[in-house]
This record gives sequence, C-alpha cells and structure tokens, in this order.
Amino acid sequence: MKSKAVFYHAGCPVCIAAEQNIAIALDPERFDVEIVHLGDAKHRVAGAEAEGVRSVPALVIDGVAYHINFGADITALR
Amino acid sequence: MKSKAVFYHAGCPVCIAAEQNIAIALDPERFDVEIVHLGDAKHRVAGAEAEGVRSVPALVIDGVAYHINFGADITALR
Repeated sequence: MKSKAVFYHAGCPVCIAAEQNIAIALDPERFDVEIVHLGDAKHRVAGAEAEGVRSVPALVIDGVAYHINFGADITALR
Repeated sequence: MKSKAVFYHAGCPVCIAAEQNIAIALDPERFDVEIVHLGDAKHRVAGAEAEGVRSVPALVIDGVAYHINFGADITALR
C-alpha cells in the first residue's frame, strides 16, 4: 500500500522550487503525492495546522510535517 | 542519467527522522542519494556550505539546498 504524502504550498517562489524539486522527486511507486495550494484551498489550512504545519512549503508524510526552507508562515494563510 | 542528491545530517534526532522519511523517499530510478554525516565527515562541511547549506538536516538536489526542519546550525559542525 502506498504512503500518503501531502505537499502544502502557497504559490510563492520558494514553494514552487520545493515543489518541483522535492515533491516531484518522491518515489511514485511508494507515495501518493497530493499538492495543496493553501492560498486557494483555505479550508485545508486548519487540517494542515493540525498535522503540525507551521509554514509553507511543507511536506507531510504519514502524518509527520517536514518544513522545507521557508516561504510563508501559515498564520498568514488563514 | 540520474540526478545527484546529497542528504547532509549530523546524527541528531531531527536529522534521523528526515533521513528515514525524506531522503529514503526519493525515487531511486531518478536519484542517486548520498547520505553524509557532517559530524563524522568534517571535510565535507566546507563543500556543503558552498552549496548553500546553512543547517542540517538538508537535502541538496542538483546543487540547490533545501533545509528540512531544523536540527543544528552548520557553524556548530565546523
């Protein structure tokens, strides 16, 4: 069974770079990667925060948040 | 041809978690992943800094550094 990975971003340049180089780099045999733009999908912000996301871009793998560089604080996206 | 990815860490708990969940998650069909423990391999610190690594754990893909969460400042590893 594949693991679930969610890449949260907000369309910022730092986010796009991370998306194109990290999110896309995950092994498709092992991960279902969902890309979520929190600027567009505001209803996903609370869920991201509950998973531990404090800033974007962030990658959540199996429920654990990894912050990749720093684009924007999630409080700016609520 | 595979891309080169280098995961720099220092053995800290944050580093180990990132290694086991991010570095290991990269697609082996597209990436040759090298794991470098900067605490053991001090001669690699200068090169990591030249690639833009400011803290560990960090993943460098095709020469671009991505800092994943925060374990230790690289200046503490010189």
